Amino acid sequence: MIVIPRIVSVSGVREWSDGTIHLFNDYLVTEEPLEIRIGATPVSVTMRTPGNDLELAVGFLYTEGIISSRSQIALVYAEADDSQNGANRVRVDLVSNCPLDPESMRRNFYAASSCGVCGKASIDSVRSRRLRSLPVDWIIAPETLCLLPDRLRSAQKIFEKTGALHAVGLFSLDGQLLVLREDVGRHNAVDKIVGWALAGDRVPLHNTVLMVSGRAGFEVVQKAIAAGIPLLASVSAPSDLAVNLAREFGMTLLGFLRGRRFVIYSGAERLAQADSLSADSQPVV
Amino acid sequence: MIVIPRIVSVSGVREWSDGTIHLFNDYLVTEEPLEIRIGATPVSVTMRTPGNDLELAVGFLYTEGIISSRSQIALVYAEADDSQNGANRVRVDLVSNCPLDPESMRRNFYAASSCGVCGKASIDSVRSRRLRSLPVDWIIAPETLCLLPDRLRSAQKIFEKTGALHAVGLFSLDGQLLVLREDVGRHNAVDKIVGWALAGDRVPLHNTVLMVSGRAGFEVVQKAIAAGIPLLASVSAPSDLAVNLAREFGMTLLGFLRGRRFVIYSGAERLAQADSLSADSQPVV
Repeated sequence: MIVIPRIVSVSGVREWSDGTIHLFNDYLVTEEPLEIRIGATPVSVTMRTPGNDLELAVGFLYTEGIISSRSQIALVYAEADDSQNGANRVRVDLVSNCPLDPESMRRNFYAASSCGVCGKASIDSVRSRRLRSLPVDWIIAPETLCLLPDRLRSAQKIFEKTGALHAVGLFSLDGQLLVLREDVGRHNAVDKIVGWALAGDRVPLHNTVLMVSGRAGFEVVQKAIAAGIPLLASVSAPSDLAVNLAREFGMTLLGFLRGRRFVIYSGAERLAQADSLSADSQPVV
Repeated sequence: MIVIPRIVSVSGVREWSDGTIHLFNDYLVTEEPLEIRIGATPVSVTMRTPGNDLELAVGFLYTEGIISSRSQIALVYAEADDSQNGANRVRVDLVSNCPLDPESMRRNFYAASSCGVCGKASIDSVRSRRLRSLPVDWIIAPETLCLLPDRLRSAQKIFEKTGALHAVGLFSLDGQLLVLREDVGRHNAVDKIVGWALAGDRVPLHNTVLMVSGRAGFEVVQKAIAAGIPLLASVSAPSDLAVNLAREFGMTLLGFLRGRRFVIYSGAERLAQADSLSADSQPVV
């Protein structure tokens, strides 16, 4: 089920344009805090765009390594909080024989944030998840990858209206869009997709490609690896830490995917044209 | 002192362009965790672009309301951590008669993150800072505001090379750039600017304008209000929560500042042309 994010209309907004001022009603994307609880214990708060909150909560618990399988979850439901902004709290009840140590969870994850990094209270905790190397068992044609930006953009419902959302799309290996999520936080959009996939028993997502509308930072790469996604493409640049993490776990990381061009930062072995490298294998600085 | 962020060169990067692959050496922006401590107590970890780390730590403590004045700080210094990545820890020692309650600080801020929101463990803690309404004691010409995007862009040293950084600039009321900071995290760039201002005894920054290169989210608006900045302009859209917060505390919030156009979401009384509204005061939907 796709839930369209809440859009609010703000009246009395003024546009100044070359000396003239007009009053109009503008559309803004909604940004509200979501509290994620395991049982009665608060685990994290993230600023997110409301919609697909159950997916977000479940995906977050999975990509942060707090749960390792959907079968650990007994029940997921939204609760109203006291802010009168609707349901801004999701509670996840685990099965009674779940091997989570509540005290350990509280100690390690109470400070966890939805982006997976900020909010951690020590550097040691930043890379605490159990990440696994990604298999290399398919190749994809560059021409297929070049289709993804247009398909992502044409599927975006909200961005055109507000200009404030990150979009993340999960694609099949033949370039078909499987699911799109948009959020004020890119990491939330990734978690929503992973939560969607968990609900459909599709994790690990070994036969998929993830495309993000902005840059590829450490936290997005880490969440994609945690979900088993072997290829991550972005419209903009990665950071050095994102590239290092992708190389360590065998992910194909592409940047600047625009028109008929992209940059391959790691994992060229999953691209159909990789053997043409032999014809031009000297660095062109 | 301006410290240029570390840029790393990554070799063996491939560019696919319309069927042809070239190897080249690319420049990537550095993203590394920074741990902020008060004394020996870890307060927060943020993924940031190294450079101006002392400013970041001090600015963070101020915009998060952990300290209320520069005079509470006895010493700020960088420490090497165990990651062999250089100094990724900043320690802030407070003066001995500082009225901070260590246990209260630990309870409330251990989970704080540099973005000020994610990482908070409950919704109640999201808006825990003591924010004050901003004074209205100057007006600015729209033409001055239209100069800011070009001035911010021309001052950006790093973005052109890597395409991965957010830029934030603090301007005087006549449009002169006072300080520019770039970071993989927009909230970090704001904290670095506030830390810079605290070091020069310029806080509250009532006679300045802040411009951010991307969108204006809740956390950036909250940090700007905490620093006393009455006008925030962004190239892209704000969220509804950002607009609500700006209106509550009397901040002028502008979006889509591009060319000779911008949208006024709140605080039109600081714009020189506000009285021309009477000529065209009906909403144009």
